Amino acid sequence: MDELKIIEIKKSVFADNDLDADALRKELKGKGVYLLNLMSSPGSGKTTTLIRTINLLKDKLRIAVMEADIDSDVDAIKIREATGIQSIQLHTGGMCHLDAEMTRQGLDGLAMEGLDLVILENVGNLVCPAEFDTGAARNAMILSVPEGHDKPLKYPLMFSVCDVVVINKIDVLPYFDFDIEKCKEYVHMRNPKAQVIPICAKTGEGVEDFARWIENEVKSWKNS
Amino acid sequence: MDELKIIEIKKSVFADNDLDADALRKELKGKGVYLLNLMSSPGSGKTTTLIRTINLLKDKLRIAVMEADIDSDVDAIKIREATGIQSIQLHTGGMCHLDAEMTRQGLDGLAMEGLDLVILENVGNLVCPAEFDTGAARNAMILSVPEGHDKPLKYPLMFSVCDVVVINKIDVLPYFDFDIEKCKEYVHMRNPKAQVIPICAKTGEGVEDFARWIENEVKSWKNS
Repeated sequence: MDELKIIEIKKSVFADNDLDADALRKELKGKGVYLLNLMSSPGSGKTTTLIRTINLLKDKLRIAVMEADIDSDVDAIKIREATGIQSIQLHTGGMCHLDAEMTRQGLDGLAMEGLDLVILENVGNLVCPAEFDTGAARNAMILSVPEGHDKPLKYPLMFSVCDVVVINKIDVLPYFDFDIEKCKEYVHMRNPKAQVIPICAKTGEGVEDFARWIENEVKSWKNS
Repeated sequence: MDELKIIEIKKSVFADNDLDADALRKELKGKGVYLLNLMSSPGSGKTTTLIRTINLLKDKLRIAVMEADIDSDVDAIKIREATGIQSIQLHTGGMCHLDAEMTRQGLDGLAMEGLDLVILENVGNLVCPAEFDTGAARNAMILSVPEGHDKPLKYPLMFSVCDVVVINKIDVLPYFDFDIEKCKEYVHMRNPKAQVIPICAKTGEGVEDFARWIENEVKSWKNS
């Protein structure tokens, strides 16, 4: 297998990230590449969820993944080995989030020709990534059962910028005080339109619902 | 019960946080108040761990807690109701960490007279809080089993600034691929002197070890 591509992300120089994000979104629309920004806490299961989801989608969509991490390559390698798709690692060098310009640095490292979907796995953090528009068509997040159903109360911005909230690790529901209905209620306090999709990335349960959400999203975006 | 004290934290004006943190540390030493900065991911069990630990220590040490959250009061109220000690809420208004000046704003809201120990529950975030010295005597962190044993590889700074790593939720070890020995090895790659203390805050298992670590710390600091 080829050596893993690792991109050391530099600090952005753009003053207005929102403007830059809109410009990037327009560029990507022109290229027909849908960018999904996936966020979560550390250890919520982003990588495992992606592997399952990509394996359901890779015959229908041409997908690439950018794995942002402060300082490790394990996730990009895991994704590539488990799915065979194009996967690169972005090192943020201590930075707690990605903005549009940093996302662009990552995209420049991808072979974009013919891609339908690029998934950005953002830095594991429920605070800062929510503050920076990456230029993605949509934001998605994963909340895992062990983190608790009260997280939309404590991290309001993250839940208000996400269009879909995947609740992962539902296999361990019996061992935690996690109330899915309460969680949905709290999510909808932040974003009434957010979809909530319970899954177990470990066993695959429910992952087809998330895959279907992505597929429909990409299709309706292409036709819009 | 009195109304909960909530302090809206303002952005710091100090240019040099390290200098300011050293000054705060000196002030606190003069007052004989040990400040412990407790960090973790969202949902790792900081509040539950604190309640258990404080209930083991409150007859030996006079303790107060500052609960930092972006925007909610549930933790400060929980701590106060479950332990009876002085507990205040710090609202960071979206800010992802506390620095020394912000910590001082919190301390100004406490009745400090006669206190031995103040515990600061920092914002749930493995990235930014590690970058800012709060002026605490020590940093502690909680890593919970569902987050995975690879976190010291992915969030190196957090693990290198902490003197003790509490591994919480060991009751669910059978349901997760979490290797405590591997985790210890990774923690010690970041900080060879860090103590690793496995606990289950829900059942109380191991919490006395963390309480003993704190008690010994406070005592030897007072005598130093």
